[in-house]
Amino acid sequence: MIVDIFHILDFLPCPTPQKWIEEACKPENLPLILTDHANNELKAAQSAMAIMSRYRTGTFVRGNGRCEQQKGGLQLRIEDQLSLLNKMSRLAREELRHYEQVLAIMARRDIPYVYLEAGRYAGQLSAAIRTFEPFRLVDTLVMGAFIEARSCERFAALSPWLDDELKKFYRSLLKSESRHFQDYLALAEAINGGSVADRVAIFAGIEQDAIESPDKLFRFHSGVPV
Amino acid sequence: MIVDIFHILDFLPCPTPQKWIEEACKPENLPLILTDHANNELKAAQSAMAIMSRYRTGTFVRGNGRCEQQKGGLQLRIEDQLSLLNKMSRLAREELRHYEQVLAIMARRDIPYVYLEAGRYAGQLSAAIRTFEPFRLVDTLVMGAFIEARSCERFAALSPWLDDELKKFYRSLLKSESRHFQDYLALAEAINGGSVADRVAIFAGIEQDAIESPDKLFRFHSGVPV
Repeated sequence: MIVDIFHILDFLPCPTPQKWIEEACKPENLPLILTDHANNELKAAQSAMAIMSRYRTGTFVRGNGRCEQQKGGLQLRIEDQLSLLNKMSRLAREELRHYEQVLAIMARRDIPYVYLEAGRYAGQLSAAIRTFEPFRLVDTLVMGAFIEARSCERFAALSPWLDDELKKFYRSLLKSESRHFQDYLALAEAINGGSVADRVAIFAGIEQDAIESPDKLFRFHSGVPV
Repeated sequence: MIVDIFHILDFLPCPTPQKWIEEACKPENLPLILTDHANNELKAAQSAMAIMSRYRTGTFVRGNGRCEQQKGGLQLRIEDQLSLLNKMSRLAREELRHYEQVLAIMARRDIPYVYLEAGRYAGQLSAAIRTFEPFRLVDTLVMGAFIEARSCERFAALSPWLDDELKKFYRSLLKSESRHFQDYLALAEAINGGSVADRVAIFAGIEQDAIESPDKLFRFHSGVPV
């Protein structure tokens, strides 16, 4: 399987700290890692579908997207709109497939699906999303690229330490997550009508802080365990 | 293809009125039918995922499902919980696949994805959902069964009047929508711990009114066009 992991490492501002990997590899933390992983796959699918819902008509509307189509609002080109909706739908389906795979692994290992408080990661990133269109969508897509890239990097970092079933599963995920990362970036550039390097730099700073600073809540995307 | 359409007709309180079929077959209404169909596939996937999100831990929590796991709350049996999550996820993926198929047909026919105000159908049905668990989930699932069954019945009713591409597509949808209807009902019975005939009767009354009474908004699930 060819996964351009170096492309992902170059994109991310920093590798996962060794202390996080050590914590994640403790057998007693495996149920938490898998449960949080299931939550993340579901959330990734929901985020993609929120984009499909909000931008379904290709017109950027104010508020919750349920109001009447905005006259004279910014309008996506038809091909960009359909490409966005189609890519997000396929991505959501893939995330749901992974979700089902995690559920099946949890079931085989008798891991109960318990409630987990959300970590800080997505919240820290989403605080940087600009509130006016089309930049809100551009930033949402850039943030999506970071989340997918970090997931990919952590699957790769964890895989040598996992049992055979999980090693095989996590390596199989690398391939699609790295494609999702590239899809998000390409869509962000298409909507932006050019490079999004300036926004990538801003999100990279926030991401690095979330990953490298102490974090009291241990999760799949958490910082350095305290 | 074997689809037990009679099973669906027996379940539904009434067939689609002829006046709705005549309206839906007018060539000028085809863009609206397809756009509303795309919206419905997305909404069906979102509804399934809302169930996955709300009941992910198998514990019925109050409020929006984000609060801390309720101590002593009603707890699903592990096998019912995993069956629910898994079935809903697979159902959501199938609805998203249909959504992509509708998008592709719209693109080939140059049908723009315009904003459409939601019809009254889902709102009328959901008003009957009880607000306390586990009956809220039971009713949500029974409502899902009606929506899927009605979609199925309308795909079948429309298909003889459509061009070859749409005829083939709508007949292909019958099969999965009829499976979804049965999945929803079986899950409702599993959660309820027995027959849901009393709830089916209540939703049937509401559904019949939504389908047979005059409706000023023409949609895929609307009543008699005025």
